[in-house]
Amino acid sequence: MASLFTKIINGEIPCYKIAETDEFFAFLDINPNAKGHTLCIPKKEVDKIFDLDEATYMGLMAFSRKVALAIEKAVPCNRVGVSVIGLEVPHAHVHLIPLRSMDDARFIKKEKLTPEDFEAVAEAIRAHL
Amino acid sequence: MASLFTKIINGEIPCYKIAETDEFFAFLDINPNAKGHTLCIPKKEVDKIFDLDEATYMGLMAFSRKVALAIEKAVPCNRVGVSVIGLEVPHAHVHLIPLRSMDDARFIKKEKLTPEDFEAVAEAIRAHL
Repeated sequence: MASLFTKIINGEIPCYKIAETDEFFAFLDINPNAKGHTLCIPKKEVDKIFDLDEATYMGLMAFSRKVALAIEKAVPCNRVGVSVIGLEVPHAHVHLIPLRSMDDARFIKKEKLTPEDFEAVAEAIRAHL
Repeated sequence: MASLFTKIINGEIPCYKIAETDEFFAFLDINPNAKGHTLCIPKKEVDKIFDLDEATYMGLMAFSRKVALAIEKAVPCNRVGVSVIGLEVPHAHVHLIPLRSMDDARFIKKEKLTPEDFEAVAEAIRAHL
């Protein structure tokens, strides 16, 4: 069965899209640690990031870097942090999180955003890509 | 002034070393989230990971992948997670953390290890490199 993220890539589930290439896709986390929290994924459905073949893994990290640099320009923060956990959705994903404090990296404190907030931050990030 | 991690690379502060190349260095986190928690760093002293030039960033991610695959073989866990936060030591570092639960990724629960525990897990990881 297609993963939640494959359904997002295919447009079966809506998302706030940030970027897309032939191999990779980036969109806002719908339950963000902080405004601008973005997920970068390979279109290839592989559960664990270190099970990706080396070329896809390296491509994903290069893609994530481009997205992170755009987030840093678009969202006021100390820096963009990275997390790869993957215990919930079995489709490798890189969290890019605008950090202001350590708590923003802990997946405990969540930020409530309206659809308008999501759309505005997505547009701001896309404008820097 | 040299960062804490530069002092570790230079041998001025001891560490449980995992791997070293001309450009990168890996060693056990002395205050680990879980046994086998490892830090991968560039020798070049740059605070934020996304401020590294692209070649050094890509080299660091490739180096971290090799170390992560060795940790996965050496340490019983669900998978190896990745975190880059960097709000404490101003020298870019990739945390590789053997995850058994979400809490292992949260930097709240810390694991107490003896010097013998550290030495044994370092040796086990090195044996898979």
